Amino acid sequence: MRYLVYLNIAYKRGIRDPEGEAIQREIFERRGVSAEVRAGKCLIVAVEAATPEEAGERALKLAWDLRLGNPNVHVVEVVKVEHA
Amino acid sequence: MRYLVYLNIAYKRGIRDPEGEAIQREIFERRGVSAEVRAGKCLIVAVEAATPEEAGERALKLAWDLRLGNPNVHVVEVVKVEHA
Repeated sequence: MRYLVYLNIAYKRGIRDPEGEAIQREIFERRGVSAEVRAGKCLIVAVEAATPEEAGERALKLAWDLRLGNPNVHVVEVVKVEHA
Repeated sequence: MRYLVYLNIAYKRGIRDPEGEAIQREIFERRGVSAEVRAGKCLIVAVEAATPEEAGERALKLAWDLRLGNPNVHVVEVVKVEHA
């Protein structure tokens, strides 16, 4: 089966995220809305796997193997897996 | 209720995505795996709303209002909504 895995590569919670902070400030100044924002990279990876769980693990492994995130500062998480 | 809305801001399907292509090539050269990749920006926006659907719409509207995506080349999509 072919699955689309949505990965989010973002700064860990404890680490400052200047891009997210800038968007958050902009939302507040322009719309008066307090909305916490975290910014990251979204990768949609199409992989072959038997189950959605396996697809998620496979995409995660590819991301770490290629060092698309830095384990010291980033978290890589599966946001969603869907049928391709 | 407070919801976390995961938005993906990415190039439309018909538009070239050099970053995704580079990652895809890298996966193929280093792992021998054919995995289509599309790269985008992931924003996690925490908003107040009555329902998950309303939260998604609210976050989408904020993203377009602030012109975080360019309607000519980008798609902004709600990937997931979860309880904060």
